[in-house]
Amino acid sequence: MVNGPDHAPQGPQGAAPSRPRATETRITHIVFPGTTNHHGTLFGGEALSMMDSAAFIAATRYCRRKVVTRHLDAMEFSRPIPQGSLVELIARVVKTGRSSMTVLVELFTEDMYSEKRELGCSGTFVLVALGADGQPTPVPALEAGPT
Amino acid sequence: MVNGPDHAPQGPQGAAPSRPRATETRITHIVFPGTTNHHGTLFGGEALSMMDSAAFIAATRYCRRKVVTRHLDAMEFSRPIPQGSLVELIARVVKTGRSSMTVLVELFTEDMYSEKRELGCSGTFVLVALGADGQPTPVPALEAGPT
Amino acid sequence: MVNGPDHAPQGPQGAAPSRPRATETRITHIVFPGTTNHHGTLFGGEALSMMDSAAFIAATRYCRRKVVTRHLDAMEFSRPIPQGSLVELIARVVKTGRSSMTVLVELFTEDMYSEKRELGCSGTFVLVALGADGQPTPVPALEAGPT
Amino acid sequence: MVNGPDHAPQGPQGAAPSRPRATETRITHIVFPGTTNHHGTLFGGEALSMMDSAAFIAATRYCRRKVVTRHLDAMEFSRPIPQGSLVELIARVVKTGRSSMTVLVELFTEDMYSEKRELGCSGTFVLVALGADGQPTPVPALEAGPT
Amino acid sequence: MVNGPDHAPQGPQGAAPSRPRATETRITHIVFPGTTNHHGTLFGGEALSMMDSAAFIAATRYCRRKVVTRHLDAMEFSRPIPQGSLVELIARVVKTGRSSMTVLVELFTEDMYSEKRELGCSGTFVLVALGADGQPTPVPALEAGPT
Amino acid sequence: MVNGPDHAPQGPQGAAPSRPRATETRITHIVFPGTTNHHGTLFGGEALSMMDSAAFIAATRYCRRKVVTRHLDAMEFSRPIPQGSLVELIARVVKTGRSSMTVLVELFTEDMYSEKRELGCSGTFVLVALGADGQPTPVPALEAGPT
Repeated sequence: MVNGPDHAPQGPQGAAPSRPRATETRITHIVFPGTTNHHGTLFGGEALSMMDSAAFIAATRYCRRKVVTRHLDAMEFSRPIPQGSLVELIARVVKTGRSSMTVLVELFTEDMYSEKRELGCSGTFVLVALGADGQPTPVPALEAGPT
Repeated sequence: MVNGPDHAPQGPQGAAPSRPRATETRITHIVFPGTTNHHGTLFGGEALSMMDSAAFIAATRYCRRKVVTRHLDAMEFSRPIPQGSLVELIARVVKTGRSSMTVLVELFTEDMYSEKRELGCSGTFVLVALGADGQPTPVPALEAGPT
Repeated sequence: MVNGPDHAPQGPQGAAPSRPRATETRITHIVFPGTTNHHGTLFGGEALSMMDSAAFIAATRYCRRKVVTRHLDAMEFSRPIPQGSLVELIARVVKTGRSSMTVLVELFTEDMYSEKRELGCSGTFVLVALGADGQPTPVPALEAGPT
Repeated sequence: MVNGPDHAPQGPQGAAPSRPRATETRITHIVFPGTTNHHGTLFGGEALSMMDSAAFIAATRYCRRKVVTRHLDAMEFSRPIPQGSLVELIARVVKTGRSSMTVLVELFTEDMYSEKRELGCSGTFVLVALGADGQPTPVPALEAGPT
Repeated sequence: MVNGPDHAPQGPQGAAPSRPRATETRITHIVFPGTTNHHGTLFGGEALSMMDSAAFIAATRYCRRKVVTRHLDAMEFSRPIPQGSLVELIARVVKTGRSSMTVLVELFTEDMYSEKRELGCSGTFVLVALGADGQPTPVPALEAGPT
Repeated sequence: MVNGPDHAPQGPQGAAPSRPRATETRITHIVFPGTTNHHGTLFGGEALSMMDSAAFIAATRYCRRKVVTRHLDAMEFSRPIPQGSLVELIARVVKTGRSSMTVLVELFTEDMYSEKRELGCSGTFVLVALGADGQPTPVPALEAGPT
C-alpha cells in the first residue's frame, strides 16, 4: 500500500518510501532556454510562478481543500540563476490560522556538475481554504513540534 | 509630466504619437485556458509573472540599462480572475535611488462584455540597474511633480 | 494623473484614471529565447500571433461583444527582431461597418538600451461581432474626428 | 518501407528512401485546451503561427538555405475550429522568383470521430532565401508541370 | 488539387479529395530554443511527447474513436538533435487487435541546409479504442497487403 | 562519493535539512488545463516528458556529469489522470554500469481533496554519462544495500 493509515510522518523522509510528508513539497526544475531571459538566466517572474505553485501544492496537501493565495510577504532576490542549473523548491506549512495556512517556500539553486547548492531566495505565502460556498473554511491546526 | 527632459525623444520616432511615455508601460492579456488553474481562474503564479515582466519593461525603459529585480513588497491578492477576462497591467517608476528604481505595478481586471473594470492587485518591485561589470550603476533621478 | 486631455475618457468609466481609450490597446513583450527561432530572432508566426491578440482585444473593448477575426490584409515584414528587444503592439479600431471593425495593428521594435524605436510591421485585421445566436450583430459607429 | 512507389520523389532529393517531397510539407496538430480561447475554439493567432511554421519548413526544404518571411497575402478566416479537432496544414512551394519562394498553405480541419474534413483557410506566404551575408541569394527555379 | 492519384485513398475514407492516408500521419517540427536543453539539443521528453502525439493522431484517424495509449515498447535513443534541425514524425498503424492498434512511430532528423536525413529513433505504441462507456470497443481489422 | 549507505550527507551542504537525497528526486505537478487533452485528462506525451525530466535530474545528481537518455524500457499506462489532480514523480538510480545509470521513475497520482494516492505508471530509463569529449565516462558504482 502506498499510504500508511494516517500518513503520520515518521522521521525525516517517513517510513513510506514514496509518501511525501504532508507539510513538505519538493519540486526540482531544470533551467532550460525556454524559461530564461536574454541574458541566459531564469526570468524573475518564472521563479515567482514556481514558488506560488509549490505553496499551492503544500497548502492543498495540508488541508485537502480548495485553496487560494491571499498574501505574499516581501521578498529579496539574490543572484541570477544561469540556464543549465537545477532549481529545487521546498515548501512547508509553518503556521496555521482558523482557515489560513502560512507556507514558507525556499528556492535552492544547485549546480548540475558539482555539489554546490545555495539558497537563492525564500518567500512566505498565506493561502486560505475555501468551502463549497466560496467562503473561508477551517483547516486543521498545525501541531507543535520540530519540523 | 511623466517624461522629463532626459527622456526627450531624439530621433525620427520622437515625434510619433505612439511613443510610450517612458515611465508607464501598459500590457493587456487575455485570460485563456492555457494560463488558468482547474477552477478556470488565472493561476496566481501567472499573475506574479505578468507583474514582474511589466516592472522589468518599465524600469528598462526608464534607465535603458540592464536591470534585475531585487525586492518585492508584500502583496495582497483579492478575488480570482475568471478565464475570458482581460487583464491589464500598468507599471510606472515611482521612485528612484542612486541605482535603484521602485516600480508600482497595478493589475486591472476587465470584463470582456461590459465596462466593468477593477483593480485586482498591485505590487511594488525594486529593480537595480547594472553596468557592464555587473555592479550597480546610476540611474537618472525621477523629477518631482504630479504623476 | 495617468491620462492627459488627449486621453480624456468618454463614457461611464471616464472618471477612472487608468481607463484605456477604448480604441487603442498597447501591449509590450520582451523577446525571450522561448519565442525565437534558431537564429535568435523572433519567429514570424509569433509576431502574427501577437498582432492578432492585440486586434482581438482592441475590437472587444470597442464593442464589448464576442468577436472573431474574419479577414487579414496583405502584410510586409521588414527586418528580423533580435532576442533582447522589446516589441510594442498598438492596436486601434480605425473603421466600422454594420457589424465589422477594422483594426490597424502596428508592431514597433524598441532597443532595450537606447531610445531607438522603429515600426517593424503593420497589419489590418477585420473582426466581426457575433450575437448570442452566433450571427453578426451591430457595433457602434466610429465617430469621425482625429484619432 | 516508409515510402511506396506512390511517393516516388521527383527531383534532386529523390534518392533518400524517407525523403518527403520537397515542395509539400504536412503537419497535423490536435486542438488542445492549451491553444484555445475561452470559447473553446482555436485562437486565430495560433492558426497564423502554425501556417507560418509550415511555410517556413516548406521553403527551407525547397532551397536548403536560411529563409525569412517577407510577405503575407490577404486571408479570409471561415468558421471557428473547436477543441478536440485535428488541424492539418499542407504547405507547398507554388512559384519561385530569383530568390523568393511563394508558398501556399492550406489549413484543413478534421473531425476526430467522423470522416468530415474541410478547408478552414488558406494563405500565401512569400519567403526569401538569404546568403551568409544576409543578402538575398538565388533559389532553384520551380519546374513546370502538374503538382 | 491537393492530392493526385498517387495519394489515392484505400478504404472507407477514400472519397475525400484531401484525405490523408488513414494509416500514415506526418508531422514536421522545427527544433527551436524553446524546446531544447541547455546543450542546445532537443530535450528527450519533448521527443517522446511528439511521438506520442503522432501515435494518437494516427490511431484516431484509423478508427475514428476515442483512443488512449496503453503500452509503449522499449526504445533506443541515438544521437542528440541540435536546435535548428527539422524533426519529422511518421506514424502508421501496423497491426490491430480487437480493440487495440499498434502504431509504429519513426522520428527522422533532417538538416535544414543539406539533404542529410536520418532515422533518429523509432517506437511502438499500443492504443486502445474506447466506447462511450469508457470500455474497449472494436476497431476495424487492418487489411493485409503492402503498406 | 555523493551518498553514503543511507544518504547521510557529507560535505558543505550536508548539514542542511533540506538537502535532497542524491539518488531520489521528487517533483510534483498540478494537472492544469494547459497540459490536458480535450477530455480534460493529462496528455500521455506530457506524462512521458515529466518522467524523462525526473530521470535526467536524478542521474545528473548521482554522477554530476552531462547525461543523455539512451534507452527506455517498455511501459504500461493505466487509467487517465484528470485535470485538477496532483502528479508526483519519484526518480531513483537503482543500478549502475561503467558509465550508465538505470533510473526507476514512478508516477503517482494524488487527489487534491482526499488522501487517495495511486501509482499511475512507472518506467525505467537508462542514461549514460558523457565526458567533455562526448564519449561515455565512468560513474560511481551504486553501493549495495537497502534503498
